[in-house]
Parts: sequence; C-alpha cells; structure tokens
Amino acid sequence: MIDHAQKVRAIEAYVAAFDAGDANAAAALFADDAIVEDPVGAALVTGIDAIRAFYSKAMQTGAKLLLDGPVRGGDRYAAFAFTVLLNFQGGEKKIEVIDTFAFNDAGKITQMRAYWAHENMHGF
Amino acid sequence: MIDHAQKVRAIEAYVAAFDAGDANAAAALFADDAIVEDPVGAALVTGIDAIRAFYSKAMQTGAKLLLDGPVRGGDRYAAFAFTVLLNFQGGEKKIEVIDTFAFNDAGKITQMRAYWAHENMHGF
Repeated sequence: MIDHAQKVRAIEAYVAAFDAGDANAAAALFADDAIVEDPVGAALVTGIDAIRAFYSKAMQTGAKLLLDGPVRGGDRYAAFAFTVLLNFQGGEKKIEVIDTFAFNDAGKITQMRAYWAHENMHGF
Repeated sequence: MIDHAQKVRAIEAYVAAFDAGDANAAAALFADDAIVEDPVGAALVTGIDAIRAFYSKAMQTGAKLLLDGPVRGGDRYAAFAFTVLLNFQGGEKKIEVIDTFAFNDAGKITQMRAYWAHENMHGF
C-alpha cells in the first residue's frame, strides 16, 4: 500500500500541476479508471480522458492551489484542505476546498472528491 | 436538504461536545443508524449506541478540537480540518485530522469518516 510520504508527494505534484497550468501532469496522477466528483454531489467525471479534459477546463481560470495545513492520511486515503486562488474578470477570487483522494497500490489516484459549496466562494 | 449554516452549527456543536466532554451531546448529532469510520479504513462503528460509546472512550483522553480554517460544504456533505489537542501521560500531544460528514434531511449526521495517520500524530 502507498505510504504517507508518497501521498504527500502526489498532492504536491497535483498542486505543482496547477501552478504550471499542466492538465496532462494533473491527469497523470490518476488511474485510468479513476472517478472525480467535484464538487461532491455533482456528476461523476469518469476515466482519465474525461479527467484530463476536466482539469484542462479548470486550469483555464488560472487557478492556483494553496495548501492549508498538513495532508491527513489514513489507510489508502488522503485528505487535504486548500484555497483555490483565481484572478479573472478583474479581481482576485478564492474558493476554500477540502479534497479526499483514494490511491491504488501503484500510487495512482482512483477517486477524488472535492468538498466546497457556494458559501466557500469569495469575491465572485 | 440541510443548508450550509446548519452544517456549520452541527460542527460547532460537535466541537463544543468535546470541550464539555459530553459524549451524549456528540452522539445526539448523529442519526440512529449512522456509521463512524475513524480513522478511515478502520472497523465501522455502526448505530448511535456504539457511536456514543466510541465518543465516551475518545473523550476520556481529554481531547479538545481546534478547527483549522472554514468548514467546506457541498451537497449533503461537509468537510473540516482540525487539530485534536490531548494532554495526558505528562505531555501535550496533537493529531491533525480532517473529518467528512454526510447529513440527512433532518440535519443528523449519517456518516462520519476521519482522515488521520500515524504521521499526523505529534508528541506521542
């Protein structure tokens, strides 16, 4: 099973992919049959091609991720709080998010769920 | 469906229950058939009686919860980062945790999952 340090590195690579605006790098962290639910309750984004397209669209906003505190682990999972910083339509905007990731033994993300609501959006 | 402010109040009540060392108050926030998974991957604690006993035992450590940043919402869910502060066996200890809660329409918690690993324990 993937260890804590590997999870932290995967999450750091996820943040770095946003910094670079590199949807391919983000998608490469996921398993081929991974499922993304962002935000929780939304329609599922299933499979790496759909996930790549999802991140490509998300990154068009110039979104950068700022980790809020340490990554939490547990079994095959990780959870981390962060703030999404956006600068578009003439102003700084931010969204407070917590993501949970599940990992397979190869260290790829098999499931991502993003917790954020309208009340977590500021400056819009 | 429960709104964001109700979720925040439930989480504040959860924190307050720990401050008071009141396992009954914590358990009262849960649905009768709720499921607690703490930490993720551990055996499930199922039903409000088992959940009350779980919190009674957890509170014997004198654990207090300090929220780390705003509650994140989304659909029927909430997620929040916090630090558990413990003072036992002669020293201050802390555990970094992220909890996710699912709520029913009555505003009761139906599922709790706590993300934390050995690497999130400090001072032990």
